[in-house]
Amino acid sequence: MGRRIGLQTVEIESKPRIIGTYNIVGPKEGQGPLKEYFDEIIKDDLNGTESFEKAETSLLYTAISESIKKAKLKEVDINYLLAGDLLNQLSSSCFAARDLDIPFIGLYGACSTMAESLSIGSMIMEGGLANYVVAATSSHFSSAERQFRLPLEMGSQRPPTSQWTVTGAGSMVLGKKGKFPYVTHITTGKVKDYGIIDVNNMGVAMAPAAVDTIKQHFMDTNRKPSDYDLIATGDLGIIGKEFTEKLLLEYKYDMRGHYIDCGEIIFDASRQGTNAGGSGCGCSAVVATGYLLKNMLKGKFKRILLVSTGALLSSTSTLQGETIPGIAHAVSIEFGGE
Amino acid sequence: MGRRIGLQTVEIESKPRIIGTYNIVGPKEGQGPLKEYFDEIIKDDLNGTESFEKAETSLLYTAISESIKKAKLKEVDINYLLAGDLLNQLSSSCFAARDLDIPFIGLYGACSTMAESLSIGSMIMEGGLANYVVAATSSHFSSAERQFRLPLEMGSQRPPTSQWTVTGAGSMVLGKKGKFPYVTHITTGKVKDYGIIDVNNMGVAMAPAAVDTIKQHFMDTNRKPSDYDLIATGDLGIIGKEFTEKLLLEYKYDMRGHYIDCGEIIFDASRQGTNAGGSGCGCSAVVATGYLLKNMLKGKFKRILLVSTGALLSSTSTLQGETIPGIAHAVSIEFGGE
Repeated sequence: MGRRIGLQTVEIESKPRIIGTYNIVGPKEGQGPLKEYFDEIIKDDLNGTESFEKAETSLLYTAISESIKKAKLKEVDINYLLAGDLLNQLSSSCFAARDLDIPFIGLYGACSTMAESLSIGSMIMEGGLANYVVAATSSHFSSAERQFRLPLEMGSQRPPTSQWTVTGAGSMVLGKKGKFPYVTHITTGKVKDYGIIDVNNMGVAMAPAAVDTIKQHFMDTNRKPSDYDLIATGDLGIIGKEFTEKLLLEYKYDMRGHYIDCGEIIFDASRQGTNAGGSGCGCSAVVATGYLLKNMLKGKFKRILLVSTGALLSSTSTLQGETIPGIAHAVSIEFGGE
Repeated sequence: MGRRIGLQTVEIESKPRIIGTYNIVGPKEGQGPLKEYFDEIIKDDLNGTESFEKAETSLLYTAISESIKKAKLKEVDINYLLAGDLLNQLSSSCFAARDLDIPFIGLYGACSTMAESLSIGSMIMEGGLANYVVAATSSHFSSAERQFRLPLEMGSQRPPTSQWTVTGAGSMVLGKKGKFPYVTHITTGKVKDYGIIDVNNMGVAMAPAAVDTIKQHFMDTNRKPSDYDLIATGDLGIIGKEFTEKLLLEYKYDMRGHYIDCGEIIFDASRQGTNAGGSGCGCSAVVATGYLLKNMLKGKFKRILLVSTGALLSSTSTLQGETIPGIAHAVSIEFGGE
């Protein structure tokens, strides 16, 4: 049985292990600085399908099914599939789940979905309710652009604050045993809205949520930034990360030297024209299943905090004059030393 | 600690209690056969807001905050808010959560969300990770029509198989103690797609998922329909219900005399022009928090099975020629006799 510590954090006693992971990314991501950490790089954004939405579904399906193989399991062994994505009515997740014979729990947390699915998966494990759980998510640059912003065919100019939705999917299999990185704490975020209305400045819209969740995590666990080898926010990008760092410093939490943003490191902004950096559910999913967990297994990081961040807007809410609410969920992962 | 029984079911040992509920419905629902079971009936579909989406948000916010009051609690007492809805990017839930100071977990299961949120909420309680959890969902006829089908202004004719999305929101507060109905078993469904493409025949699209989950629940628990005072599917409507009953009879499960569909009983189809019946996340939410749980508290039902059903389509998937996948989640609730 786990226990609540502080206001928003739970300590997970059973240490759900991340026993298998898989990620698959688009060609652009595969040319970025993290290319060596990806399990599969597709050659064509459509991945042999007829639409960007179907391509995204195929990426998510591949990530999930390959992660199950990596864990040396079969579909029938998995008790729950927890997945979500950015598309209306979770299209990619629902259609990927249709081809998988696994009980399905759909989640929506926008780009916070990797930490959200990992959180819920760990909570289910903690109750003794599952032997194996899959937590997964995806995004696709082209399906996101046309849904949230403008048709690609318009060739609109992208402002400097804009981010580039990652084409990619990441999946983690949770199990009870083995020498693998494991979940120790979960801090679930509240929805925060500081009145940002610019849909081309998501990083700043999500920063207050990231600050709130990280600060609360430190307060609840009585930890500080230096207790982590690495704290990784999901997709605040270059501008949102700077904002978050500054705001946390005001609360006396000095993140410098312990902090990266997945959206900042996944692309080389100057070479790849990605402006403020990467975004999308896939961003923290492929960086977590790549750079973060693979380096944990190598012994480079012993304790990390994954803080996936989501902007909870819809194109309808924007048209109706709403501001952009954000959310961030944090999961503390450890490996080695036990 | 709970335990897994059979392939898709878990037995919940801690018996999370439904200690407070609230529902709020639109004028049409308030003129239907279940009017006496609703806590609040609004006079105007817009509920004093500028758009149907904002109206839906206001309904969900009211249901959540009033259910917390009914449980004699405050926002700060609630550890998790689990909510979802039909709108793109869970608009109603995200914007309702923005005004609530509660850690938020967004869920998407289309109209299966009441059972999905109640399932996850119970699982979190089972792990000892929460003292109080809120499970809630909403739908709105007018926001759903324009998002999934056609603008209301067109005045399109509705085919006989079409269903009427319920305008309403329902919320349940789960706690650990007290003499209240409690959750005993959860059967989480798989995505089932039998190739239905008619977006005006959701009941039949969802029926295979309902059949699959109900059959699996009986197999896993070694129960039969007559072990329940009532089995209630979410929103299959008149046609989908008949289909489900027939298909289950082929598997030798005779549902007759123990089975209702929330979508069938919420409207008087002949008098209210609702064709095949009610639908939407709100449908099973307001019937569960109304007719089902209020009658449990009165002693009329001792053991029920709530099987909320969802059609996992999006308007994009339909335009891209996809069929309609369905899902159903079942939660067994008991009261009295202990």
